[in-house]
Amino acid sequence: MSPRPRTIKLTLAYDGTAYIGWQRQAAGTSIQALVETALGEIEGGAVDVGGASRTDAGVHALAQAASARLTHPMEPPTLVRALNAKLPDDVRVLSAEEVHDDFHARFSASSKTYRYRVLTGGVASPFEHRFAWLVPGPLNDREMARAARALVGRHDFAAFQSSGATAQSTVRTILSADVCRAETSRWPGGEPAGNASVITVEVTADGFLRHMVRALTGTLVEVGAGRRRPESIAELLDSRDRQAAGPTAPAHGLFLVRVTYDSR
Amino acid sequence: MSPRPRTIKLTLAYDGTAYIGWQRQAAGTSIQALVETALGEIEGGAVDVGGASRTDAGVHALAQAASARLTHPMEPPTLVRALNAKLPDDVRVLSAEEVHDDFHARFSASSKTYRYRVLTGGVASPFEHRFAWLVPGPLNDREMARAARALVGRHDFAAFQSSGATAQSTVRTILSADVCRAETSRWPGGEPAGNASVITVEVTADGFLRHMVRALTGTLVEVGAGRRRPESIAELLDSRDRQAAGPTAPAHGLFLVRVTYDSR
Repeated sequence: MSPRPRTIKLTLAYDGTAYIGWQRQAAGTSIQALVETALGEIEGGAVDVGGASRTDAGVHALAQAASARLTHPMEPPTLVRALNAKLPDDVRVLSAEEVHDDFHARFSASSKTYRYRVLTGGVASPFEHRFAWLVPGPLNDREMARAARALVGRHDFAAFQSSGATAQSTVRTILSADVCRAETSRWPGGEPAGNASVITVEVTADGFLRHMVRALTGTLVEVGAGRRRPESIAELLDSRDRQAAGPTAPAHGLFLVRVTYDSR
Repeated sequence: MSPRPRTIKLTLAYDGTAYIGWQRQAAGTSIQALVETALGEIEGGAVDVGGASRTDAGVHALAQAASARLTHPMEPPTLVRALNAKLPDDVRVLSAEEVHDDFHARFSASSKTYRYRVLTGGVASPFEHRFAWLVPGPLNDREMARAARALVGRHDFAAFQSSGATAQSTVRTILSADVCRAETSRWPGGEPAGNASVITVEVTADGFLRHMVRALTGTLVEVGAGRRRPESIAELLDSRDRQAAGPTAPAHGLFLVRVTYDSR
């Protein structure tokens, strides 16, 4: 008798620079395809891996969640090591755990948190340019934070959805939207290699429309630059007009930070 | 009458991943060539830029020093902005200052500090793999620190010079050699994307032989792995035999941290 198939939840981190995004596509290398291939080699057959979020090309993850059904009886800690031995260095499995069979990384998620990183107001560290949007500035982060607070709650976010997206409903609930200014990045240690500030936009919601965090960030940066008032966010939401909002910030500044599951 | 030529000291940071190193060579893009081209466009003529250290291909810098003679009267802060506008995002000028005409970034330097980063003992963050050597481990950093202390002082470092190097003397003075274990890198903020330790080897000396820090690190990692005793460092120095020392650690874990000038 073959072993009972289990549902495994994986938590992954990746540097999205080299990839077409999480989702498998006709051309290019996706994170999903890498993980499915690695898991398939262990399973000895095809494995479907569902991710909590379809991170776009160039978007990074600190903790993407994914789920898969696996018949192979390998213990979770061994599975982490076996997968990491097969995956490239810029895609890492942080943990694996057995979960209830009704768990699905995408459909069971209660909220997701994204962080967008903006470097501004000085010389940007050469080690940051792949992982932040460099904006000359100056940016007023207090005004950005005020504007961000107007986004919190249940709203129709059609104004922040990329044109061509086809979500059935554009209503989402933003649980928190915070803007912080950090001192210069000191990574990789010692003297900071630059003196730009790091402004982070961190948004937690029950779900996101396509390019939503990037459109929100592009709009908040316009507020920070003084080209848009924080008070205008409410009418922008009402307009449901993508053209009325700011530009879509580039993918490489965006990180999927965490995915939350209520039942766990 | 043309303006008096000034000597300018530049401090630069760079991500060395894409480059053949500091030094101009027949093929490939060097940091030196990028800076000379950018400075030449401002000067309206050829400019020689001398670097304090010839960082190898793939080696990074937090604060490389360079000097150049410039006739153009541009003020140093403006020069910083003008150079950064011309240079790629992975090469940044952190500062510029006018210095005495007898200053030369290489020959005036009294000491240089390099840091080597090793990630070990867990899942390495996918954001670190270009900036650290991933060693499975476990590594005993206390034993590594003990071995490092035996390197301090005036010694013949022939055992740590790459074969084929042609330095006239292989005697150098190491002023400090420290090994530290840091907790997991938290860059770029939030949850650490991995749980590996960062072990740093930081060495300050009056000068370095070719690949010296990388050979020292390769040897210290053998000590950390238990394959070599800390007490063996003294006899290794005496041997002057490169074959007796450990392997040359890969370039991408190495950072030029600072260059010190006595007279300043």
